[in-house]
Amino acid sequence: MITIEKIEQMQACMLAERQKGKTIGFVPTMGYLHEGHVALLKRAREENDFVVLSIFVNPLQFGPNEDFERYPRDFERDHEIAKRAGVDIVFYPSVREMYPHKPSVTVKVHERVDVLCGKSRPGHFDGVATVVTKLFHIVMPHRAYFGMKDAQQVAVIDGLIRDFHFPIELVAVPTVREDDGLAKSSRNVYLSEQERKEAPALYAALQRGKAFIEAGERDVEKVRQAIVHHIEQHTNGVIDYVEIYSYPELKPLETLQGKIILALAVRFTNARLIDNIVMNVQ
Amino acid sequence: MITIEKIEQMQACMLAERQKGKTIGFVPTMGYLHEGHVALLKRAREENDFVVLSIFVNPLQFGPNEDFERYPRDFERDHEIAKRAGVDIVFYPSVREMYPHKPSVTVKVHERVDVLCGKSRPGHFDGVATVVTKLFHIVMPHRAYFGMKDAQQVAVIDGLIRDFHFPIELVAVPTVREDDGLAKSSRNVYLSEQERKEAPALYAALQRGKAFIEAGERDVEKVRQAIVHHIEQHTNGVIDYVEIYSYPELKPLETLQGKIILALAVRFTNARLIDNIVMNVQ
Repeated sequence: MITIEKIEQMQACMLAERQKGKTIGFVPTMGYLHEGHVALLKRAREENDFVVLSIFVNPLQFGPNEDFERYPRDFERDHEIAKRAGVDIVFYPSVREMYPHKPSVTVKVHERVDVLCGKSRPGHFDGVATVVTKLFHIVMPHRAYFGMKDAQQVAVIDGLIRDFHFPIELVAVPTVREDDGLAKSSRNVYLSEQERKEAPALYAALQRGKAFIEAGERDVEKVRQAIVHHIEQHTNGVIDYVEIYSYPELKPLETLQGKIILALAVRFTNARLIDNIVMNVQ
Repeated sequence: MITIEKIEQMQACMLAERQKGKTIGFVPTMGYLHEGHVALLKRAREENDFVVLSIFVNPLQFGPNEDFERYPRDFERDHEIAKRAGVDIVFYPSVREMYPHKPSVTVKVHERVDVLCGKSRPGHFDGVATVVTKLFHIVMPHRAYFGMKDAQQVAVIDGLIRDFHFPIELVAVPTVREDDGLAKSSRNVYLSEQERKEAPALYAALQRGKAFIEAGERDVEKVRQAIVHHIEQHTNGVIDYVEIYSYPELKPLETLQGKIILALAVRFTNARLIDNIVMNVQ
């Protein structure tokens, strides 16, 4: 495994690998890798000849009041994890390398952003789409891997790839969970002992909503209320949102039909947790 | 020569050509080809194994009061010209093919746009950068050819390619001129007989500015005034702008130094003509 910090060197490497006919799998991350990332790397390793991991904390996707500076970083540990996961190249550029000057062009995302987490983070997905566009051109992968834990990000990247016709296959990897169903997240360590006991109720609430639909319910608000009720009954967390949309379009639904997402965000004392289920409704 | 109307078919074709190790030259146009376009095609033909011409009148780059509907189109004629120029594929998509729905992502251009022609066409270069991004992913060329007649467009595409790290070489092709120096343009036919006689004074004015600099003048405003004066003396056109900037950054200059552009736009009765000179100042 080698680490590359320069864009030009990275592009030269990737062009050479493509020339050899190798298929390239790409896992873009902000580092501080956890089991969710490892699942992406594993899947990329299975499906491609060559695997690239990028580690870049992207200032463009942080709002003015968000903690770009304090975002956790641990390159040594990430390097070890990447090595064990069979990564071929870690692309690890500096902010100066990626943004030598104020960007003269950025990507503006018009759809799929004014709901869920995007509602409270204006410009966040513009920053994500911009850095992903840059990384796609630098790495030139055949497949790119994103975790369904952040389903809205997957939806935005899906729109980006489709509308800009990137010759790249988006692979959405299922959320990795603890045995009790809690979605794995770096933020779970910030839960108190009591909160950690309550937290599996989030996924349970989503499953309850899903079961409700599978039992024949088609009224959006009734399913939403069932999820809200379950969370309120079983946790002391404060609900940020419980929303149901078409997926990946993230449009409101008149009735539950087609591919849909049930998504939630709940605030505990020191951690805000998100989770979702995507399902097909006949 | 074949004509392709579908994005998917185009991408499959281009991937196959790349697989064969062919170098691909790309000339994106809005059709209604003239000698300027032919110069681009000729250059692309010389430098690449495979030449793609796209013809697409891009609604996204027309303002609400601009004439998207009335923009001239003549596919039969364009097809003949392309054939004679040795084009391999004409990519000729419909608006529906390129924009099946309101675009969920677009490119926003932040630099190089609030001067010259961009000043009076807000959003124009966002539309240009968006369609070029799409076309670059569809055609996947090694080299893309643009005419220096529209120097600001070349500057914007230069920023787009650099900042988004497109693995594409931008080739800026010199403006094709009539024997008397007038830059070739579809709009020249709208000049009256008298105006046509005056019009070469535009290029002469730019050359006068250039000669002034080469003789040692470094004061931006003095050179600008010399160009203005020459136009006013020799034409009845109304000056839209005469501007001097660094190139391709299009930033104002304190003193004439480095790579610079002298650019102008002049309105005649039924035609607005543009022209420019880019030069290096020691």
